[in-house]
Amino acid sequence: MTRVRDLSEEQILERIVPLLPRGSATLLGPGDDAAVLAAPDGRFVVSTDVLVEDRHFRTRWSTGYDVGRRAAAQNLADIAAMGARPTALVTSLVVPGDTDLEWVTGLARGLNDGCAPVGAGAVGGDLSGGPCLVVSITVHGDLEGRAPVLRSGARPGDVVAYAGLRGWSAAGLALLEAGLVRAQVSPAPLEVTDGVLLEDAWEQLVAAHLRPDPPITAGVVAAEAGATSMLDVSDGLLRDAGRVAAASGVRIDLDAGAFAADREALHSAARAVAAATGLGDPGWGPGTSDINGLIDRWVWAGGEDHGLLATFPAGTRLPGGWAAVGLVLSADDAGPAAVTIGGQAPDVGPGWDHFRA
Amino acid sequence: MTRVRDLSEEQILERIVPLLPRGSATLLGPGDDAAVLAAPDGRFVVSTDVLVEDRHFRTRWSTGYDVGRRAAAQNLADIAAMGARPTALVTSLVVPGDTDLEWVTGLARGLNDGCAPVGAGAVGGDLSGGPCLVVSITVHGDLEGRAPVLRSGARPGDVVAYAGLRGWSAAGLALLEAGLVRAQVSPAPLEVTDGVLLEDAWEQLVAAHLRPDPPITAGVVAAEAGATSMLDVSDGLLRDAGRVAAASGVRIDLDAGAFAADREALHSAARAVAAATGLGDPGWGPGTSDINGLIDRWVWAGGEDHGLLATFPAGTRLPGGWAAVGLVLSADDAGPAAVTIGGQAPDVGPGWDHFRA
Repeated sequence: MTRVRDLSEEQILERIVPLLPRGSATLLGPGDDAAVLAAPDGRFVVSTDVLVEDRHFRTRWSTGYDVGRRAAAQNLADIAAMGARPTALVTSLVVPGDTDLEWVTGLARGLNDGCAPVGAGAVGGDLSGGPCLVVSITVHGDLEGRAPVLRSGARPGDVVAYAGLRGWSAAGLALLEAGLVRAQVSPAPLEVTDGVLLEDAWEQLVAAHLRPDPPITAGVVAAEAGATSMLDVSDGLLRDAGRVAAASGVRIDLDAGAFAADREALHSAARAVAAATGLGDPGWGPGTSDINGLIDRWVWAGGEDHGLLATFPAGTRLPGGWAAVGLVLSADDAGPAAVTIGGQAPDVGPGWDHFRA
Repeated sequence: MTRVRDLSEEQILERIVPLLPRGSATLLGPGDDAAVLAAPDGRFVVSTDVLVEDRHFRTRWSTGYDVGRRAAAQNLADIAAMGARPTALVTSLVVPGDTDLEWVTGLARGLNDGCAPVGAGAVGGDLSGGPCLVVSITVHGDLEGRAPVLRSGARPGDVVAYAGLRGWSAAGLALLEAGLVRAQVSPAPLEVTDGVLLEDAWEQLVAAHLRPDPPITAGVVAAEAGATSMLDVSDGLLRDAGRVAAASGVRIDLDAGAFAADREALHSAARAVAAATGLGDPGWGPGTSDINGLIDRWVWAGGEDHGLLATFPAGTRLPGGWAAVGLVLSADDAGPAAVTIGGQAPDVGPGWDHFRA
């Protein structure tokens, strides 16, 4: 095993840079003091997100490749949520000296596999030692002449729509935290749970957590279809819907029926987690004393699916990948909360807070 | 004292965001999934740099404000080194939960004071808990229609020129590491050194380390004057000059006489450090067994002054802030090294390596 401390910074970069995607907007890539990118419409979109070891990922569950995929996904989703096409990202990486070089090259491959399908390049970075792994990415996008789609544009009467998975990442994390493992690695826990958790469900849910694959192209499609507001759902559907409600000065009512398929998909995982750990774990928050409550928690408050939530004018034919999940109401309408489910205040806790959770 | 763990992420952002500079290129600032920036010439320049606690700064020497100033400076210098005007930056911040909120708001004020004079905005960021402080900044710039100035454009016969301080940051760090303190805080160490270290020298050298103030505007000026190559000197003059030599396929000969004023400015600090710690500290590298050797080490191999090194065609009238410091030679000319001082191979060690140093 080669550890990063055995190599100089330049030697490490020599291993990483060839693995990175170039991207069609890259006019000058890595190797100088800065990269140069095309911004053909005279503007660009920029966002940054950081992943910290033992906060956002654990190396016993996530490979370097997984973290690269995840870092790419959550950053690209922020660009998509503006209605922009991702063009390029830069990465700051903090790595303990005893880290296996394979972890770092895996991260580069994960970034590549996350970025290449949407044409985004990895155009620069910085590398430092430090006490834990930190992956900080800044991503850029091109609005292609469109207005950015903000959180503040939802209007009463608009349809609320969603693209992507709901609750899968939270369920995958719960499977990992419960110690449930892939059948071929250790079949016992799955048998304990009455065989309800299919192996492919484990694979899909855990993959949704470790290597989220958000619907990046759905962002541009939504903007072209006239989306009035949009955001990346990273902190839980209720909490992020609340941000649209607050920014737009509206209420949002979600339709529980629109989530029936998600609930069904998560049911076997919830039964497995409940059998392995018992219900009512205080860490899961309120309302998780039965299996339906646990599923509710994943669907409504689970973070990091990085799906897109948008609003469209009434009567819009929703583009492919988008499904109607609710309605925008006037803030003047009577209602028990800024975001309701079928007119009722939700009884699941708030989403992820990076200092409190 | 308010610790960051006592507040939610949103509460912390409410305290920080009003402190940040807006910048004239900012079309949409913080608060949505991404910011929108103007790129009027259809391109933009981007670079990223990370500062890690106990690697790049120590909280016993640096306040949050200092780290903000330093992070701004080193990032802005990368943009300047391309011949671009800095427009905006985004910041990812990792903060242990027991950090004083004042440290974080100080960081924001430091970013502001570093960015505002050059018109750059702070347009977004991300915030996470973690085991140590990490400040990762990505900075953007506008080439205003010019070609970027690369490391690879130096040609034999060009004049080598420098803008900024040489060795002051390394001397300031050595003063701090030697435990030498400001006279009014503890006059004793200065008396031990025969009174050679003036109080204002301490202030200036330590400030050059903690809050570097690189000549950001000198980058655009150099590009307009026809600079053929340029880079930010962050890892030591010899090492960074070596990067220009390698990228351009040339040799660089530096003129020791051009650095006489720097050597003079650093002399009292070198005597103070030598008196306080003895000479020949193995951590200082080769050639530091006398005071002149220590000064050599600071001037030629000291990192983090973030001055700009550029080359100009022979006969160029150097713009304000720039001084000639050497000559570009053909790689075919006989010479003992890619970078020489008065034709001789330098005997100081290499510059900073983030894993090895």
